Amino acid sequence: MIILGLDPGLGTTGWGLITSVGNRLSHVANGQVKTDSAAPLGERLVALDAALTDIILEHRPDGAAVEEVFVNVNPQSTLKLGQARGVCLLAAARSGISVGEYSPSLVKKAVVGVGKAEKRQVHAMVARLLPGAKIAGADAADALAVAITHAHHMASAHRLR
Amino acid sequence: MIILGLDPGLGTTGWGLITSVGNRLSHVANGQVKTDSAAPLGERLVALDAALTDIILEHRPDGAAVEEVFVNVNPQSTLKLGQARGVCLLAAARSGISVGEYSPSLVKKAVVGVGKAEKRQVHAMVARLLPGAKIAGADAADALAVAITHAHHMASAHRLR
Repeated sequence: MIILGLDPGLGTTGWGLITSVGNRLSHVANGQVKTDSAAPLGERLVALDAALTDIILEHRPDGAAVEEVFVNVNPQSTLKLGQARGVCLLAAARSGISVGEYSPSLVKKAVVGVGKAEKRQVHAMVARLLPGAKIAGADAADALAVAITHAHHMASAHRLR
Repeated sequence: MIILGLDPGLGTTGWGLITSVGNRLSHVANGQVKTDSAAPLGERLVALDAALTDIILEHRPDGAAVEEVFVNVNPQSTLKLGQARGVCLLAAARSGISVGEYSPSLVKKAVVGVGKAEKRQVHAMVARLLPGAKIAGADAADALAVAITHAHHMASAHRLR
């Protein structure tokens, strides 16, 4: 099973692909899609959609996952994030991939083992769980973390059947 | 010139098409796209994208416009709105249409003549400016209002040249 994790953002969207066979995870690819902050909003969203659609067509993931968003102090930041997140969810769902949503604490628990881990602990564990992966940046690491969470969730759901 | 106005929302997105020839405005079509609140978020965004893409392919607008969003008391509402707004902007921009953004007070000023008009005054003026239009609802009326604003803006920009 190939899983696509996404960490949406208007400026930078992280993405990460892993395969999951039983409890075994392997890194496939990861990266960060950046959009031109000087371009009109519509064009930035088109660039994001095009980049994600290329990744999906190349790797044909079986499932996708994003983090749930709870709060943001700045409404304008929340709106920007929402616009990028809508495009991410659309790009996945349009390709017929179901998209799982996981709370930040669930992602931390799945990757580090505790729900209150720090960001750098999450990134360190992502690197350890996916040896050999050259991680493009913090947003790509977050995307891989949510992909790992989705893999764990799928494995438990399978065991429960 | 055919102008598409959009009033984005995850539950209901209003849309309205008008033609503008000099100072003359005419109604073309309007409606509201509703998505199933019981469906997964990704599927709702796919349904919204598909409906807007159909409208754009059928009517081939030359320009599009949405209202700017400033504040929302509830961050979760802002996130939902952002996701729908991202899909609206993407659907327009992907078709090569530039998307204008106008503040709510500018829309009121363009339609009613004053920036502090009430919603019902805006809707009444939309109906008066587009005689014969059967308006699908409040969101469609808001979409027609922002289309009218874009038409006025284009007309002034033309005069200034």
